[in-house]
Amino acid sequence: MQLKELGEKALIDILDKRFSQTDPRVIKGIGDDCAVTIPSSGKVLLSSTDTLTEEIHFSLTYTPAKLLGRKLVNVSVSDIIAMGGTPQFILLSITMPSTIDEGFITELYRGVKEACSESNMVLIGGNMSSTPSEGSIVLTSTILGEASRDEVIYRSGAAPGEAIYVTGTVGTSYLGLIGLQDDGPSAITRSPYRNSVARHLDPKPRTKIARTIARKGLATSMMDTSDGLAIDLATLAEASQVGATVETILLPISSEMQSYLKKENEDLQLPLRGGEDYELLFTAKEEHKEEITLLAEQSGIEITRIGLTEKLNKDSKSNNVRFLQNNGTELKIKNKGFDHYK
Amino acid sequence: MQLKELGEKALIDILDKRFSQTDPRVIKGIGDDCAVTIPSSGKVLLSSTDTLTEEIHFSLTYTPAKLLGRKLVNVSVSDIIAMGGTPQFILLSITMPSTIDEGFITELYRGVKEACSESNMVLIGGNMSSTPSEGSIVLTSTILGEASRDEVIYRSGAAPGEAIYVTGTVGTSYLGLIGLQDDGPSAITRSPYRNSVARHLDPKPRTKIARTIARKGLATSMMDTSDGLAIDLATLAEASQVGATVETILLPISSEMQSYLKKENEDLQLPLRGGEDYELLFTAKEEHKEEITLLAEQSGIEITRIGLTEKLNKDSKSNNVRFLQNNGTELKIKNKGFDHYK
Repeated sequence: MQLKELGEKALIDILDKRFSQTDPRVIKGIGDDCAVTIPSSGKVLLSSTDTLTEEIHFSLTYTPAKLLGRKLVNVSVSDIIAMGGTPQFILLSITMPSTIDEGFITELYRGVKEACSESNMVLIGGNMSSTPSEGSIVLTSTILGEASRDEVIYRSGAAPGEAIYVTGTVGTSYLGLIGLQDDGPSAITRSPYRNSVARHLDPKPRTKIARTIARKGLATSMMDTSDGLAIDLATLAEASQVGATVETILLPISSEMQSYLKKENEDLQLPLRGGEDYELLFTAKEEHKEEITLLAEQSGIEITRIGLTEKLNKDSKSNNVRFLQNNGTELKIKNKGFDHYK
Repeated sequence: MQLKELGEKALIDILDKRFSQTDPRVIKGIGDDCAVTIPSSGKVLLSSTDTLTEEIHFSLTYTPAKLLGRKLVNVSVSDIIAMGGTPQFILLSITMPSTIDEGFITELYRGVKEACSESNMVLIGGNMSSTPSEGSIVLTSTILGEASRDEVIYRSGAAPGEAIYVTGTVGTSYLGLIGLQDDGPSAITRSPYRNSVARHLDPKPRTKIARTIARKGLATSMMDTSDGLAIDLATLAEASQVGATVETILLPISSEMQSYLKKENEDLQLPLRGGEDYELLFTAKEEHKEEITLLAEQSGIEITRIGLTEKLNKDSKSNNVRFLQNNGTELKIKNKGFDHYK
């Protein structure tokens, strides 16, 4: 059944039932002018908003609705944990043409619910509206979380002479996107890059690692990677007013990516420019090296030291981040990532 | 200059400068994975999300960008104050084609800034992304506010035998929309319905009235009117599990609406179905009658008693809200308002 036959009220009723849950943090969830929630005493509030737009961030030709719902939640979860916080609540705004099938939205919400449940979160606000029939689906999530004030980790905390780390692998999500664009939905099961495809469609926030880093104070600065490591590290370095040198030989590249780069005769620019990894990028003092190694072992997820921060050369016209290759030359990143308006 | 020439980063830089303000409630605003803010001790958090979509909620053919920015903020402010709260922070997600002119977005943000300033609010989060060129502009605002827990006013608090009040006039925004659709942008200055046009393009949240109602505990239930009084009152009555009878002769109808209804030979269904008034709809015990009259005088804004709540007849198949005309018959509302998917 299409949404235009079902109607907005019937749809909201279905979803309300699905999300009617009691939680001690929530006085009133969906169903009034606002949600009313109880902040924990002495904590600071974290908030962030993200949008996924059809044909820009995803295509329905190869994106299962349930995974899209999970991703909508988890890209926001990633923002909260990358600040050292704990996610709590989410508000969603869904704009879509009335010709969309009811099944799409119930699957989308099934993914939303699953991801909320995995992160112990409550959906407390929703908004659904139509868009003209030729319009794109636009999904906006706003996430609320909290943290102890002294555990919050900003992008701006790095100092010269600190190690730079990244979790997981670099550029994996982008390779997954290439797989999907080449092979369509069959890439999910049959692509030579299917692990990357899975990562692209269903990114996993590094919650446990981030929580330990925040609790133990292991990082001086942290952010999640969403625009590609080259851009993200430049952002972190700029916020911290430091320079950074990455040794490209140290970059964690998946075996699928290695095969792809070899086959296509591409260099490491591709993984450095690929966005949407939602890994943690952080800097740490050398004294925490062993704790970080231990954390990687305990979590079963790679945490790789890729380089070092350095004093910013303010007179230099060149980039504040250098990617140094094994042969001693610099890898120049030509187009540093995705610009929404270019 | 079009956004595709300017680029996302340059645009964000322009807006960051515009919104770089220090506020004791904000530890970190725009520019990190999340905003970090300080909740007031002992208060509850209020949050709500709203979306304005081009060609559904507004048309650029007659909507000045600055007023659109103001409306984007103020429809959210209206949600917070209608719960008895104080708005504090806003996060915006802007999705638009890259062919939009830079001037549009700077004007939009000028309106956002003005409205934030009027409500002592800070823009703490932003997100900008593109949509395919044929796509609609989609603007989502998420508002955060706070309230003393014992001052929060829900939709569900009405009991039988209470007076029903509405601020301002009914259906005014919808008449303004008719004026704009008939005459285009010239309606702003030249329409016979130009006060209604002004109200449609630039709704004013009833902040002072709502604040006094909350502080003094004058209302048992409250909400803002956004879907038309007929739907909104039915929503409030359903949430409170009461019935309601409105005397149509008591409805506050502007002189512009009176002229229009006479000229078009329309009955009161039209103002009762017209959405987007963003007035306050509330119920109060008879003992507060004089204080409410005084509040109207002090604020210079009409607060009109339009009817009475009553015991819900659960066996009845008819509507829980009746609109009773002077001749003793009921005014039947045929199509109770706007359904986004029908």
